Amino acid sequence: MINKMADRIIRSFESQSMMRTLGARIHNIQKGKVSIEAPILPSTLQQQGYGHAGLTFSIGDSAAGYSALTLLPEDQEVMTAEIKINLLAPAEGELLIAEGKVVRSGKRLVVVTSEINAINDGETKLIAIIQGTMVPVPVKS
Amino acid sequence: MINKMADRIIRSFESQSMMRTLGARIHNIQKGKVSIEAPILPSTLQQQGYGHAGLTFSIGDSAAGYSALTLLPEDQEVMTAEIKINLLAPAEGELLIAEGKVVRSGKRLVVVTSEINAINDGETKLIAIIQGTMVPVPVKS
Amino acid sequence: MINKMADRIIRSFESQSMMRTLGARIHNIQKGKVSIEAPILPSTLQQQGYGHAGLTFSIGDSAAGYSALTLLPEDQEVMTAEIKINLLAPAEGELLIAEGKVVRSGKRLVVVTSEINAINDGETKLIAIIQGTMVPVPVKS
Amino acid sequence: MINKMADRIIRSFESQSMMRTLGARIHNIQKGKVSIEAPILPSTLQQQGYGHAGLTFSIGDSAAGYSALTLLPEDQEVMTAEIKINLLAPAEGELLIAEGKVVRSGKRLVVVTSEINAINDGETKLIAIIQGTMVPVPVKS
Repeated sequence: MINKMADRIIRSFESQSMMRTLGARIHNIQKGKVSIEAPILPSTLQQQGYGHAGLTFSIGDSAAGYSALTLLPEDQEVMTAEIKINLLAPAEGELLIAEGKVVRSGKRLVVVTSEINAINDGETKLIAIIQGTMVPVPVKS
Repeated sequence: MINKMADRIIRSFESQSMMRTLGARIHNIQKGKVSIEAPILPSTLQQQGYGHAGLTFSIGDSAAGYSALTLLPEDQEVMTAEIKINLLAPAEGELLIAEGKVVRSGKRLVVVTSEINAINDGETKLIAIIQGTMVPVPVKS
Repeated sequence: MINKMADRIIRSFESQSMMRTLGARIHNIQKGKVSIEAPILPSTLQQQGYGHAGLTFSIGDSAAGYSALTLLPEDQEVMTAEIKINLLAPAEGELLIAEGKVVRSGKRLVVVTSEINAINDGETKLIAIIQGTMVPVPVKS
Repeated sequence: MINKMADRIIRSFESQSMMRTLGARIHNIQKGKVSIEAPILPSTLQQQGYGHAGLTFSIGDSAAGYSALTLLPEDQEVMTAEIKINLLAPAEGELLIAEGKVVRSGKRLVVVTSEINAINDGETKLIAIIQGTMVPVPVKS
């Protein structure tokens, strides 16, 4: 069951060229929780040399969206309706890890959160939090 | 005056490697309003072949941030404190254009909005709206 | 048509005891746009003597929700899924007016904004902006 | 120390006439965490007979704001810059409890969250989550 769901998420993830461009990888998949990591690359920086907010957002959004997907039947997928992100500290270090989690899964909407940590010289620091809404939609065939 | 400010924004923009990675360009700079455009590239897609939400967010955030910067003295820069984005429609087409605008500029905070449109076969469609907060901080020397 | 819709909104509004408690009134109803006003009462203040953020939120949310309702068939009503409010200035003066507007009306979600102004000695000042999501749901019979 | 801080918060809370109007009370004060409760009164309902979103927002905002205040020096107070609220379920029952918490306390901004639960016949249900930003400002003398 978990394996089937994990396969589905991995397939979807691999079809997102943006994830490849950012160097992102799936880190963990559980029912209602998915984590995604990405290195802070020379190609994804903002003007002060930290990781770009767009990088933080992208993996936080994906982690949240896939955590929602783990709770949906196979004939549905999710779309992001809205995301609120609070940036707490610069994305400084080697790696970002986004942990997405489902807060409430309903028929019409799935409410999700993500926490994004930066790993800098072995130290972990919370750099952003996300609160958002995913919408289940039928899979197009 | 406008030229000096524009120079400063262009320099800052060019030092963001993420903007190059996304193929983004500054489209227009006015006092309190900045627009940024980016093609929907084969390398910035989500799983259904539309532009990734991370692309939409990145240029929307940058347009909003630089619109705030146009109203600040030269010894200050801005950091994004928080962004809320509502995604209205898939990012379908050749090009996205984000228009950032300052709603209220205060000493401590600058409240901003962005509208992101997709250009698809010559048709323009609003695909996302952003409401966020920028924080003026002293330029590090 | 407009009258039928307006009747429906007025009936719904009058059944909200919170609106009476806040002294709120419907100010205007158009297709896709509803405005609601409320005096800043001695009973709805925060600790510095300005109108409470809960007052600003309440009328901003209602104006946005009813603007969504104007675009829905009679067998549907709306529920607020999420609201983001940025507070720009203290709610100072005699009266607040919230103007709600539909940005995008879809089958599953209606994206809305509100602007809330304070009237202080005849001067109008923008004190808050809202960006949110309403969900159409079947009317319970 | 805690007592002095608690006194300050109680004094501030009691000077908010809106909190009296809503029947709200402080439930608990700890360093970085404040909870506020309010009955669902006949005077604070929405059109379907549930507690109004403005009630949920008001106590969630206050709990978050006061949790920020517990970490600030005595010559500062807080103002709400922005709040994002996701409504998960109707506010059904006798009582709402909002638990506010500081996520990151900085010089310029304090990022906060709140969880709001409804108590219905002894059962507790999460009905809303909040993610927001408070701004420390000097106390006016």
